[in-house]
Formats: sequence, C-alpha cells, structure tokens
Amino acid sequence: MANEHTIKESSQDEARLTETTRTEALSDGVFAITITLLVLEIHRPEGYEPGGLLHALLENWPSYLAYAVSFLYIGVLWLNHHSLFSKLRRVNLGFRWINLGILFTTAVLPFPTAVLASALAPGNSSYDQRVAVTVYALAAAAMSASWLPVFPYLRDHQELLEPTATAEYFRAQRLRPVIGVALYGLAVPVVWFLGPAVGLSFFVIMITFHAVTSEGLREGPLGRLFRVRRADRR
Amino acid sequence: MANEHTIKESSQDEARLTETTRTEALSDGVFAITITLLVLEIHRPEGYEPGGLLHALLENWPSYLAYAVSFLYIGVLWLNHHSLFSKLRRVNLGFRWINLGILFTTAVLPFPTAVLASALAPGNSSYDQRVAVTVYALAAAAMSASWLPVFPYLRDHQELLEPTATAEYFRAQRLRPVIGVALYGLAVPVVWFLGPAVGLSFFVIMITFHAVTSEGLREGPLGRLFRVRRADRR
Amino acid sequence: MANEHTIKESSQDEARLTETTRTEALSDGVFAITITLLVLEIHRPEGYEPGGLLHALLENWPSYLAYAVSFLYIGVLWLNHHSLFSKLRRVNLGFRWINLGILFTTAVLPFPTAVLASALAPGNSSYDQRVAVTVYALAAAAMSASWLPVFPYLRDHQELLEPTATAEYFRAQRLRPVIGVALYGLAVPVVWFLGPAVGLSFFVIMITFHAVTSEGLREGPLGRLFRVRRADRR
Amino acid sequence: MANEHTIKESSQDEARLTETTRTEALSDGVFAITITLLVLEIHRPEGYEPGGLLHALLENWPSYLAYAVSFLYIGVLWLNHHSLFSKLRRVNLGFRWINLGILFTTAVLPFPTAVLASALAPGNSSYDQRVAVTVYALAAAAMSASWLPVFPYLRDHQELLEPTATAEYFRAQRLRPVIGVALYGLAVPVVWFLGPAVGLSFFVIMITFHAVTSEGLREGPLGRLFRVRRADRR
Repeated sequence: MANEHTIKESSQDEARLTETTRTEALSDGVFAITITLLVLEIHRPEGYEPGGLLHALLENWPSYLAYAVSFLYIGVLWLNHHSLFSKLRRVNLGFRWINLGILFTTAVLPFPTAVLASALAPGNSSYDQRVAVTVYALAAAAMSASWLPVFPYLRDHQELLEPTATAEYFRAQRLRPVIGVALYGLAVPVVWFLGPAVGLSFFVIMITFHAVTSEGLREGPLGRLFRVRRADRR
Repeated sequence: MANEHTIKESSQDEARLTETTRTEALSDGVFAITITLLVLEIHRPEGYEPGGLLHALLENWPSYLAYAVSFLYIGVLWLNHHSLFSKLRRVNLGFRWINLGILFTTAVLPFPTAVLASALAPGNSSYDQRVAVTVYALAAAAMSASWLPVFPYLRDHQELLEPTATAEYFRAQRLRPVIGVALYGLAVPVVWFLGPAVGLSFFVIMITFHAVTSEGLREGPLGRLFRVRRADRR
Repeated sequence: MANEHTIKESSQDEARLTETTRTEALSDGVFAITITLLVLEIHRPEGYEPGGLLHALLENWPSYLAYAVSFLYIGVLWLNHHSLFSKLRRVNLGFRWINLGILFTTAVLPFPTAVLASALAPGNSSYDQRVAVTVYALAAAAMSASWLPVFPYLRDHQELLEPTATAEYFRAQRLRPVIGVALYGLAVPVVWFLGPAVGLSFFVIMITFHAVTSEGLREGPLGRLFRVRRADRR
Repeated sequence: MANEHTIKESSQDEARLTETTRTEALSDGVFAITITLLVLEIHRPEGYEPGGLLHALLENWPSYLAYAVSFLYIGVLWLNHHSLFSKLRRVNLGFRWINLGILFTTAVLPFPTAVLASALAPGNSSYDQRVAVTVYALAAAAMSASWLPVFPYLRDHQELLEPTATAEYFRAQRLRPVIGVALYGLAVPVVWFLGPAVGLSFFVIMITFHAVTSEGLREGPLGRLFRVRRADRR
C-alpha cells in the first residue's frame, strides 16, 4: 500500500530508508560469529596427568552443557530475527539503532556462557553457581528487553513493512519479549530459592518457548491449526 | 512443478517459506568462521630456550596435521552444503532447524581439533592419544548424523526443491550420511585395537570419500560417465 | 548523470569499476567480526576464592564499560559506513584502498579496548590509566583520519555516486572526519590534565556526536527540520 | 561466446556449474575473519610494574609491525581475489577446490604473524628471528603457490569466464604467482645471509608488488597508459 508515497519518500529521504540487505548482512554476521565463537569458551583440557585425558574431558561437562544451551539459544534468536526481517521491506535509521541493540545483547552471550561453564565445574561453591546462573538470567532478560521496542516501533512505521505483515502478526509478537523479560527475571529468585539446577532447567524451557513461538504466539505450531481460516479472511 | 501451489502457499504462509538467502548467509558465515578459527588452535611456541624456536616449531607438528585435516574436512562439508543448497528453491522453518543442527556439529569441530592436536604432542601417553582420536571420531559421526534428516525431509517437502533436483539425486545422497555415521563409528574400535595412527588414516580416507562424492554417490566423478545418458532421459 | 560515459567506462575498464557488493560484504564482515570479537576482551573471572565469583565479576566493571563503549563506537561506524555506501553506485580500485584503510583502523579497535579494560582495573596506577586512555584516543583519531580521504576522493570521482548523492551531502560530510581527528586529538591533553575519567566522558560525547550526525551534519536530526524545503528545491 | 553451449551445460550439469555468489560469500567471510583475527595476535601488555604500561606498550612494537604487514598483505590478497572473481561468470567444482586451496593458505597467515611478532620481541636471539622470518616467507610462498593453478585452469575452462575476460588478461596474470613463489622463496637465503631486517623489507617490497599489479602485470598502473589503445582494438 501507499506505493506512491514510498517512491517519493525514497527520493527525498534516500539516506534514511534503505533496503534491508546490509542490515541483514551485519546481523547474520554477528549471529554467525557469536554462535561460532562459543566453541572458544569450551575449556580445553590442560595439565592433566598422563592417562588422565578422558577424566579431564568428562569433568568438563558443564562446558558442553553451557555450549549446547547457548548455541540453541542463539540459533532460536536467529530464527526469530529471520522471521522478523521477512516481514520488513525497508529499514530506517531508527530501526537500525534498535537492531544494534539486539546485536549488542546477542554478541555478549559468550561471556555469561563462559561464566556459567566455569562456575558449574566440579568443586565450585553452590553460592558461585547461583551467581553464575543469575548472570546468565540477567543477560537473557536483557536480550528479551532489547526486543521490546521492535514491535511498537514497527506499528508506528508501517512504511517499513511488507504488505504481507498483518496487524495481527504484530499484536501476537508484541507480547513475546515482555514474557521473556518477566520469565528470565523470575529465574533469578528461582535460582536463589531452588538452586542452580532448577534455574538451568528454566532456561531450557524458556528457549523451547522461544523456539516454538518463533513465528509469533499464534503463527507457530499452535497457530497453524487456524491457518486456513485466516487465509480465507484475507 | 506445482507452481500454482507455491504461489498460493507463499501468500498465506509467508512467515514460513522463504528464500534461501539468509539461511545461506548464516551458514556461509558459520563455515567461514569455523574454518578460520581453526588457526587459533595451532599451538603458538612459547617459553622456548634462546635458539630453540625451530625445535619448538617442529615439535608442534600435530597442531599442523590437525589443522590441515580439519580445514580439509570443513571445506568438504561446505562443498556438500553448497551442492545441497543449489538444489533448493526455498526453505521452511523445519529445514532451518535441520540446518541449525548441521551448523551445530560443524561449529564444534575446533574443539576436537584442539584435543587431538594437544594429545598427539610428543610425550603424551598412547592411551590419551586413543581418547583424543575417539573424541574426533565421535564428533565426525555426530556431524554425519546431523545430515541424516536432510534427505528424508526434502523427499516429503518437494515444494522446497528446484525443478532440477531429481528424485534420483536424493536417493543417491540419502546413503552418504548413513555411511558416514557407520564408518566414523567404526573408527572407534579401529583406534583402540590398531592405534591412533591407523585411526587418523581412517579420517583421511573418509574425508576423501566425502570429497569425491560431494555431488552424491552417482553424480560425482564416477557418475559423470553416465551424465549424457541421464541428460537424454530428461 | 553521464550514463553514457559510465557504460563505455564499464566495458573498457571492467577490472576497475565494479559493483559495491563484494566491498560491502568484506566491510560488513569486518564490522561484524570486530564488534563480536570485543566480547573476547571481557576478562573472564579466574582464580577467585570459593564464594568470590560475585566480587570478581563486580570488580570487572572496566571490562564491561570498555566493551559497551567500543560496541557503541563500532556500531556507529557501521551506520556511517552504511550511510556512505547507500550513496555509492560503484567502487574502483582507489576507493577499495581507501575502504581498506577504514577497515584497518576499525579492526584494530579491540586492542585499545583491551588495554583500556585492563588499565582501568582497580589497583592500577593513575599514570597507566592515562596512558591507556591516550592509546584509545589515538586509535580513535586514526579511525577518523582514515575517513579523511573519502569525501575529497568522491568529489573527484562522481562516476562512483548514485544520482541521489548531492554535492551538498558531501560538503556536509567532509567536515566530520576533520572534527573527529581534532577532538580525539584534543582528548589527549584533556586526559593528562583532567584525568582519565574526564577523558572517557569525552569519548562518550564524541561517539554521540558521530551517532547523531551519521547522515551528515545537516541530514541528521537537525537537518530533518529543513527536509521539506530541500525536497521542494529538487 | 558459446552461450548456447553454456545453457545446455547448465541444464544437465546444474550441480556442478553454479553462480559465484556462495563461493564469494565464503571467500569474503574467510578474508574478513582472517584480517580481523590478526588483532588477537597483538600481544596484550600484562604483568607490567605499576607505571610501566607505556614501556610495555612500546616494547611491543614487533606486534604492531607484524599486524600492519599482515593486514596489508591480506588486504592485497582480497583485492586480487576480488579482481579475479570480477572476471568469472560461474564456478565449477574444480574451481571451488582451487579456491579452497587459496583460502587455506590465507587463513593460516595469523600463525606465522604470531610467530614473527613473538620472535622479534626484544631479547630474542637473532637465530630465532631468522627462523621466524623464514616461517613467514614459506607461508607467503605457499600462498603464492596456491594461486598457481588458477590461470591454467581458467584457460582450459573458458565457460567460467565473463566475456570481458580477455586472453591477454590471463597471460598477464599467469606470471604473478610464479614470481611470488620465486621471490618469497628467495627471501629465505636473504634472511639467512643478510639478517631478518633485510628479509622483512623484502616482504614489504613484495606486498607492494602484489598491490600495484592486483589487476595484472599490464592492467595495473603501468598498463593504464595503454588502456585507450586496447579499448580501440576491441
């Protein structure tokens, strides 16, 4: 809609409204690098006794767990980002700033991953483990918070959207980061009252929630049941 | 085929069926970063006596070997991935998940590479070397396993394929990950009974197998003999 | 303008004038990797007493500050680079060299970030902190200096520009790197006379300046007031 | 030329001849990551006395020199790669293998850079410095050697070329890797007879040679004098 408007816009405002190409390229770069840098956080076995490599590797399980959880997490974030950008036709400066905020909270994730992996190693105090899980929860809450401005901003800048992006889609999406902030925030008291293991399980549930709703609360697996009906309405 | 079907699909299902562009961008990013991060696993000579750099560098040969093998391995995996995506017209959410599984087992490879490089260093026990080769074999088997769902999934989602992707191609490809899992699994007893050197040779053979069949068991070098006949049949 | 000229150019000079695609791909890669590598410079807490993780993490605040400042800085540089390339239709060898200069001063930023983070750690001498802030200021001045040749070069090579790139835009942009070099250079005596904290505040102001003028001194937030008038004039 | 041939080729041989897009994406990724990873090889000052940061930073000059030389080197290699791919219309499996060879010798460069930076540090024996420069020279010779198959292969696979790629261009380019291997090989005796400083100067000359001939021995700055004449002949 408003194609005429867009063309005029593009000639007077050419510095501000651009194709999504480079923003997607930078974002894919950051996602790809972050997800791949995680492997550097897996503790390499060192200084083991002769014949002790197997033991050293097995003792290292928190590294593998932290790696797998963070890989899954960033993978899901990328799926969400991909799904979002498939609704966008163009981006402007304001949206590029919002996107930089998302990349900020994404790119920092290897740090809480490293903290978590080292604190879960055998022999560490339970207090330190709660601290580490709390750090991870706060990083995840910040990640969700960085998505908060996305949907309100797009509601006010319809000119950025593909015609296929329905108002319904954005209503459904808007709640997801709010739920994310609330639940990751909730993970903090859970960790302190119920221990780090329960806190960690919380993350796995949250990431699964992000995964199955990556196309919005309604357009995901549940929403598919209603797909035909909506297609009719259009 | 079924172009009409696809167009309708794309208007009602726009969040789920997308161009392969961004999935390829993320994948190329992960492949490029993983293959380049390997260089950080080459042990930098440190703490050598004055005049001892040459000796320290030469003693470091397992790092170079592990680097070369892993570089070749990831290069071949990229060729396979490239060949696969040249058959795809679009991807959906399910396939993006399968692709994330492949990226997971790819991105982790610098870790077994580091374990292998450090265990093969002179003075380590043969037991630790067998452990390290076993870790590498299991990582490689997991890599092949992550390819297992690709071809069955595409068989059931023909709408993702380019018209040039023949059923024959997929029949030929389907067996490759199965063979990979079986042979990398077989490398484990080989290492324990015949020693790490034989186990390592096994990898080189396997990677060569992946390389010469990167276009499928039949469309590779061998299959080229039959190319003209198949072109006639179309 | 001079479309005819360009076409002839492109057939005789094909090795030198190319699309901006690959130059943007390399640049986005370098920006994405640099901004993501910063996370490796955040000091991981190590060797803390049992129960001391929280204290170790809190003591680590200079790492987080340095990370945040550098992330913001590189993000703004990317916005500027993006804005510049949206004015370019093609690049030639000379411009690719200028771009490599920009990438050089960008890719080096994790090093002064690491120096800053480690020098600000509690217990370091104020002298070392001034040295570290000076190093950062010089790196930032070099970064601005690497932008100096951009606008004069483009003024002399109009064939690289999109028709939407007005002379006015380039006049407005030309001053920005000059101001950057001057002010970052000014940060050096500020640090030595007024201390590292004032010097650091200087950077935050500078980066904000870069941010709000990323579309030129006039086309940014201030310039928007005049947008309608300029659109009329065209 | 032979457009008809190419189209038939593309329908029967679709798995083997593809657009250059993904090969360029992987290559740009590897170049961007390698050039950016170099910064991790700059030795971070550690364990200095209070007030000793400046001295520690200045003592570190070999790191900066090695960084700058390697950055320039990889930048020039990217310019060459870019120039080559601007002549290509498509790539096949054989060429993708040749390209992987080039990426292999590129991605390994941070390792000799690190060896060089650490060996040039004050207090190291001149013998170790010669070893380090030799390692760098051999890596550079291997890099040139990986370009050897490019031009002969393209001469035999004209179907990969853009129509603008003239036979003359390839004749001119073919000699460059040969000269590279010879001169970098020559750097080895130079280092041993004349010392590491002369050897290092050799590299700077070589990289400059690569830079000014990045468009071929004739199409570079020198060749531009003849440009008009050649354009007439076409």
